[in-house]
Amino acid sequence: MISMEPIGRVRSPYTEPSQIPKGLGTVHQALGVIELLPAYEAGLTDIEGFSHLYVLWVFDRAVGFELVGTPPSDTRPHGVFATRSPRRPNPIGLTVVRLLRREGCRLHVSGVDMLEGTAVLDLKPYLSNVPDDELRRGWLAEAEERRVREEAIGDANRREDR
Amino acid sequence: MISMEPIGRVRSPYTEPSQIPKGLGTVHQALGVIELLPAYEAGLTDIEGFSHLYVLWVFDRAVGFELVGTPPSDTRPHGVFATRSPRRPNPIGLTVVRLLRREGCRLHVSGVDMLEGTAVLDLKPYLSNVPDDELRRGWLAEAEERRVREEAIGDANRREDR
Repeated sequence: MISMEPIGRVRSPYTEPSQIPKGLGTVHQALGVIELLPAYEAGLTDIEGFSHLYVLWVFDRAVGFELVGTPPSDTRPHGVFATRSPRRPNPIGLTVVRLLRREGCRLHVSGVDMLEGTAVLDLKPYLSNVPDDELRRGWLAEAEERRVREEAIGDANRREDR
Repeated sequence: MISMEPIGRVRSPYTEPSQIPKGLGTVHQALGVIELLPAYEAGLTDIEGFSHLYVLWVFDRAVGFELVGTPPSDTRPHGVFATRSPRRPNPIGLTVVRLLRREGCRLHVSGVDMLEGTAVLDLKPYLSNVPDDELRRGWLAEAEERRVREEAIGDANRREDR
C-alpha cells in the first residue's frame, strides 16, 4: 500500500463531469490554475522555462474500477489500460497542460480537463515527443477512421436524397 | 490521504540506481517487461494497438523529498517539479515506453529506466505529441547548449595546444 497526499488543487471551469468535453477529436483548451500548497512553492523554481507540464492528479470523484469498458470516443469496449477511463485500479489522471505563466505557487495553464478542486499529486516537465512516424494510436485511430467513413457515407446519402 | 496498490512490477536489467543511464543526451532503450498481476489482465484488452505507453510507477527506493536539487543533467539547482528527481513529495515516476509485444499479462517494452521489481501503479496509452514548434525545454535546453559551447571551446583549446 502506498500513501499519497495532495500537493495542491486544480482551479477549473468545470464543476460537473458532464461539462468536460469528451469523445473523438476533443481538443482541451480550457484555462485553469494549478494551485500548489505554499509549502511546495520552492519546488517550482525554474518551471517557467518549460512550455508544457505533466500534471498527475486524482480522479477523486470516480468510484471503483472497471477492467473493460466503452469510452466516450468509441462504441466498442476496451481494456482500462488502453483508455483514459477514470474508473482505474489506481485512480490517477495524467494531463499535459501548456504553462502560460506563474504567479508564486499558482501556475496558469491551458488544456485543463479536470474538475474544479481536483487533488494534484505531482508536476513534471514535458521533455520530448515520441517520433511522429513511430506513434500508433490503436483503437482510437480505428474509431476515428470509422467515423470519417461513416460521415462520408452520410454525406453521399444526403447528396443522393437531393 | 490517498492510498494506492501496485497493479504489477517492472522486470528490468537494472538492480542498482547507479546502473541507470542518466544525464544530458541519455536515450533509454533498455528492454524490460511490465508484469501485471493476473487479476488485471482483462484491463490490457486492445493495448497491443498502441506503439507507446505511459507507465506510472513508484520511486520505491527514494527516501524523503528535496524541493530544490541539482539533477545529473546540470550543474545548477532546479525545483523538483521542473526535474525528474526521484525525491518528490509524492514519489511517482512516469516513463514513456515502446510496446514491443504482449504475452498475457506481460508487456515486453523498450525504454525502461526503472529498477528491477519497481511497483507499477497505472498504464495509459500515449495518444499525442505536443506540436514540436510549441515545445520549450527550459533549463534542460540551456544545459545542453552550455555543454555544446563548452565542448566547442575545449576543441578549440586542444587545436591551439597542437
